Amino acid sequence: MIHRVLAADLPRHVGRHVRLAGWLHRRRDLKSVSFLVIRDRSGLAQVVLSQPVPYPEETVLRISGTVVANPQAPGGAELTAPVIEVLAEAVEPPPFDLYRPTVPAALPTILDHSPVALRHPRLRAPFEIAAAGVAGFRAALDGLGFVESQTPKIVGTATESGADVFGIDYFGRPAFLAQSPQFFKQALVGVFERVYEVGPVFRAEPHDTARHLAQYTSLDAELGFVRDHRDVMAVLREALAGMHAAAAERAAGALELLGIEPPEVPGEIPAIHFADAQELLARHTGEDPRGEPDLAPAHERWLGEWALREHGSEFLFITGYPMVKRPFYTHPDPERPEFSRSFDLLFRGLELVTGGQRLHRHADYLAALAARGEDPQAYAGYLAAFAHGMPPHGGFAIGLERWTSQLTGAANIRQTTLFPRDLHRLTP
Amino acid sequence: MIHRVLAADLPRHVGRHVRLAGWLHRRRDLKSVSFLVIRDRSGLAQVVLSQPVPYPEETVLRISGTVVANPQAPGGAELTAPVIEVLAEAVEPPPFDLYRPTVPAALPTILDHSPVALRHPRLRAPFEIAAAGVAGFRAALDGLGFVESQTPKIVGTATESGADVFGIDYFGRPAFLAQSPQFFKQALVGVFERVYEVGPVFRAEPHDTARHLAQYTSLDAELGFVRDHRDVMAVLREALAGMHAAAAERAAGALELLGIEPPEVPGEIPAIHFADAQELLARHTGEDPRGEPDLAPAHERWLGEWALREHGSEFLFITGYPMVKRPFYTHPDPERPEFSRSFDLLFRGLELVTGGQRLHRHADYLAALAARGEDPQAYAGYLAAFAHGMPPHGGFAIGLERWTSQLTGAANIRQTTLFPRDLHRLTP
Repeated sequence: MIHRVLAADLPRHVGRHVRLAGWLHRRRDLKSVSFLVIRDRSGLAQVVLSQPVPYPEETVLRISGTVVANPQAPGGAELTAPVIEVLAEAVEPPPFDLYRPTVPAALPTILDHSPVALRHPRLRAPFEIAAAGVAGFRAALDGLGFVESQTPKIVGTATESGADVFGIDYFGRPAFLAQSPQFFKQALVGVFERVYEVGPVFRAEPHDTARHLAQYTSLDAELGFVRDHRDVMAVLREALAGMHAAAAERAAGALELLGIEPPEVPGEIPAIHFADAQELLARHTGEDPRGEPDLAPAHERWLGEWALREHGSEFLFITGYPMVKRPFYTHPDPERPEFSRSFDLLFRGLELVTGGQRLHRHADYLAALAARGEDPQAYAGYLAAFAHGMPPHGGFAIGLERWTSQLTGAANIRQTTLFPRDLHRLTP
Repeated sequence: MIHRVLAADLPRHVGRHVRLAGWLHRRRDLKSVSFLVIRDRSGLAQVVLSQPVPYPEETVLRISGTVVANPQAPGGAELTAPVIEVLAEAVEPPPFDLYRPTVPAALPTILDHSPVALRHPRLRAPFEIAAAGVAGFRAALDGLGFVESQTPKIVGTATESGADVFGIDYFGRPAFLAQSPQFFKQALVGVFERVYEVGPVFRAEPHDTARHLAQYTSLDAELGFVRDHRDVMAVLREALAGMHAAAAERAAGALELLGIEPPEVPGEIPAIHFADAQELLARHTGEDPRGEPDLAPAHERWLGEWALREHGSEFLFITGYPMVKRPFYTHPDPERPEFSRSFDLLFRGLELVTGGQRLHRHADYLAALAARGEDPQAYAGYLAAFAHGMPPHGGFAIGLERWTSQLTGAANIRQTTLFPRDLHRLTP
């Protein structure tokens, strides 16, 4: 039996009889010769025929033949004197030509036909980069003594934000899809000290924008025995550096196809306090955001440009967000209690990560819930962890699709989401 | 500033002034001396005091002192002349003593108090093994050219089995929690050829047993251009070997604590056809299961023992299950069409993995759905992948919690599930 050779390996088999298998990517019939371009997971390979064949594009073929060097062929070699076997027919034409270098279709068409549209090398590439990034995230945290966990996506109470949560019929009882693994990862700091999870989170946000998804992949980490939020930021820096290094190493082909070089993550990412950022904006932008509890998207973009100009960094930490805009478990800054020990990380002027130090004392939780008029009973399972001694801790969450989107310059986050779910889309 | 030293590293710091941080695992007050045992993520360390301290167990402490060699202390060294700082108080006693070598509590008590119960080293250990196993699964498949994916957990139709599915209110429309990534991973074979996913799956099975969970972690893989199910079995063998190797390497301490050695995965796992297995049972067990479309649990156990006796293997493939008991996408055996090209993998006599070759031709799908009286319209998004050419392919799904459970000899799958969800349990 002849073993299958991948398209990218064809040039190493010049002079030999081999077998290719893949999709008919493109067919070109000239006067006296025909070419088939075969696509497999490694790339493209050219097959030369003396006669045209009748198969439409995307037919799955197995082809044996002799490899001949040809500088004109992709990779410098092609398959000649082929014997072709059809493994599976394509019974419908693709919604658009998959062989064109750029994608000749609008996003809704692409999404409606994603099982076939994603076969286009440019549409597939972001997901190869995402897979590499996730591997780098895990490798960095594994190296720092973190333990990976899997936690429930079905929860009994819609505690974290109240609104924007999907309801489930759970054996006749009401339940909800988890908006984040926040409470679980904090409890697990008591078990493992350092924990991470890569998993789906769910937001029933009724917004139809280029940035909102009903489900996305959250890269969550949480660690104990921190001094303050700066220890969390240092770990986040390592995780991000791991993601970028892994993308460069494991998804080199995809990056090259898209013409992207992942930016270097600085050894120390520049950081600016929220109040100082507002001062800066007031001084330089002609607007005065001081007193506002949050930054406007335009201000984030301006700060991203400022960081690149002043610090040569595509990343910028904004620290110390006002407590009023942060969740109840956020640790205040003891010296300026209206500000928090939390941070956002901007990547190219867009929020990529949110994180910070959390409260860790049981009494502080009871006080924080009381101050917001919330019933501690609704948080009983969560509070139990703090009743039994929890160290100072903090963590962060990176949106995977958002990272891939910012890195690849995607205009819409759906381009970096496999089979996206949103306000309108529930299929395919 | 003195940097923190982990408990397990204490013996390497004899003679030095260091700082420990962790939970007060145990306090022992003798007549003239007191001992504190401090627990951190690396293990236990002993601290010697001349006076008792009033802190209850699970108080979070930071202790600086001088390391002195002492053969009686865990690891051969202890911390003396300590200065103790309380990082967080424990305001409630643990539900049971965490310092006892075995767990003096029943499963419901453990589960009700899991945020603190999981701190017990024996209860924590299975999750360290699980994390190592998942890392090994990924490493093995990464090495074989697989791409990791994340797919939707919210789906528009309850197609795969109809019953046992959780309903969601999706922006006012009915939707469902995915019972598996089956349809997505098959479509992605058309994109990546080889794909895997580690993620939650949801089953609304109203069974209150030691083996049923409403959410579990599925290790899914799917690959194209297979000869038949045997190529899938070969990849599964590699994935399992990777899991066992990683457990031995990355969770050595947890395995040692539980007194477990992961069994070797044979280079070739023994396989027996379903019909031959029934013959064997008829010949040796005094029962005659021939004609039954499935194996009873007792028969699986008998076959597991048979494989260990005859082949020295804790694993056994049963191949060729009758088509009537397999899902519609299962590929039949062309020579005996009442049997399938599917398999189960038994681990110690219990089904751990299900897999097989799938149909790949569009016409075969239409015929299979028609034969079962199903409406192809309900499968439109899924069928689209096959309309555009799909190679012969197959895959498998490993239940992570079940793997950990079988490996550690857990009596109940909830012992290897963080915060399990079942018919009755929705918290913590």
